[in-house]
Amino acid sequence: MGRTSDARNKILAAAAALIEQRGYWALGVAEICAAAGVPKGSFYYFFESKQALALAVIDEHWETQRRQWEALLGSDRDPLQRLRDLFEATEEVQRASRRKAGLVAGCLFGNLALELSNQVEEVRLRLQEIFEAQIDLIERVVAEAQAQGLAAASIDTREAARSIVAQIEGLVLLAKLLNDPAQLESLWRNCLDLLQAPRPAALDPGRP
Amino acid sequence: MGRTSDARNKILAAAAALIEQRGYWALGVAEICAAAGVPKGSFYYFFESKQALALAVIDEHWETQRRQWEALLGSDRDPLQRLRDLFEATEEVQRASRRKAGLVAGCLFGNLALELSNQVEEVRLRLQEIFEAQIDLIERVVAEAQAQGLAAASIDTREAARSIVAQIEGLVLLAKLLNDPAQLESLWRNCLDLLQAPRPAALDPGRP
Repeated sequence: MGRTSDARNKILAAAAALIEQRGYWALGVAEICAAAGVPKGSFYYFFESKQALALAVIDEHWETQRRQWEALLGSDRDPLQRLRDLFEATEEVQRASRRKAGLVAGCLFGNLALELSNQVEEVRLRLQEIFEAQIDLIERVVAEAQAQGLAAASIDTREAARSIVAQIEGLVLLAKLLNDPAQLESLWRNCLDLLQAPRPAALDPGRP
Repeated sequence: MGRTSDARNKILAAAAALIEQRGYWALGVAEICAAAGVPKGSFYYFFESKQALALAVIDEHWETQRRQWEALLGSDRDPLQRLRDLFEATEEVQRASRRKAGLVAGCLFGNLALELSNQVEEVRLRLQEIFEAQIDLIERVVAEAQAQGLAAASIDTREAARSIVAQIEGLVLLAKLLNDPAQLESLWRNCLDLLQAPRPAALDPGRP
């Protein structure tokens, strides 16, 4: 039992790394098994298909990311600072990916949304749920900021949260295309703009 | 000569449609030729490889889109209205795609950037040039808006243009994922926020 679940985890980890680097269609099951160091027969013991594996990779990635987002966005810091913490963590993920693999991997969910959403309905639905959950998490903080006068009273908190998620995805796309995590540095300034936030000196968007 | 260039165009058109719907890796040359109605031998007469075809599809798509962007952004309308024209045209492209194929196709360049940029260096470089050219075109209009007092004097026009392009890509991603072109409706409001634009009644972002 210990050994089998170990094989499953090895397959999941290898698949996550390969999908992040190369996407879904470019990969074959044989290659995933070789990278995981498990025989191909094991694969079909744990996963019905490559698609089932992709869903498991998505779920596991979201499980980890959701915990991180909840910790950052649910901290006791100022609401705008919590958003800034999220942006910095997002940038750090891409910096770490470049340090490790030489390449900005981008966002697994964004990559798969563009690659698969028009082809695999089950993946589309799962990713829709994840993006809505991201928007929910951000909206709660935006609403807190608004209640504290840190975002304009006139903004629609849902729309603002959706626009912030879109801004993250768009800038991560540019970061991946340019292999340059610094593209994400403008997230914070843009977020303040989208929230029509007053800009006290303490929240100056400039970097030291 | 007429016939051969006709076959090339058929291959290009079929490949553009298939790549928009399904991406690059999921496609094979045989399928492209079948959709184009040309024998597979013809393919290699015109294109060295599937990658060479992808580059030709990118170039042709940009040629068309660049003309459209230049016409909209170079018109004699108010600078902010020109940006709004671009956003509405972008939304209409996705609406047309859904009417025709039942699916929001998304942005060909964004799709290929996420699918290929870490794998095919030539595609990465071509797409980098295209996104920089898009940012150039938008930056010119942002600078005009700024000169006319329609955007805050304090914004960095390059950064703002880059953020607008990222916002387009991010919202197109959500539109594709949700198969809902209306996701793009917030582009105009978000652009005004990113430009810290004053909001005279005539430019009210609300829709009728």
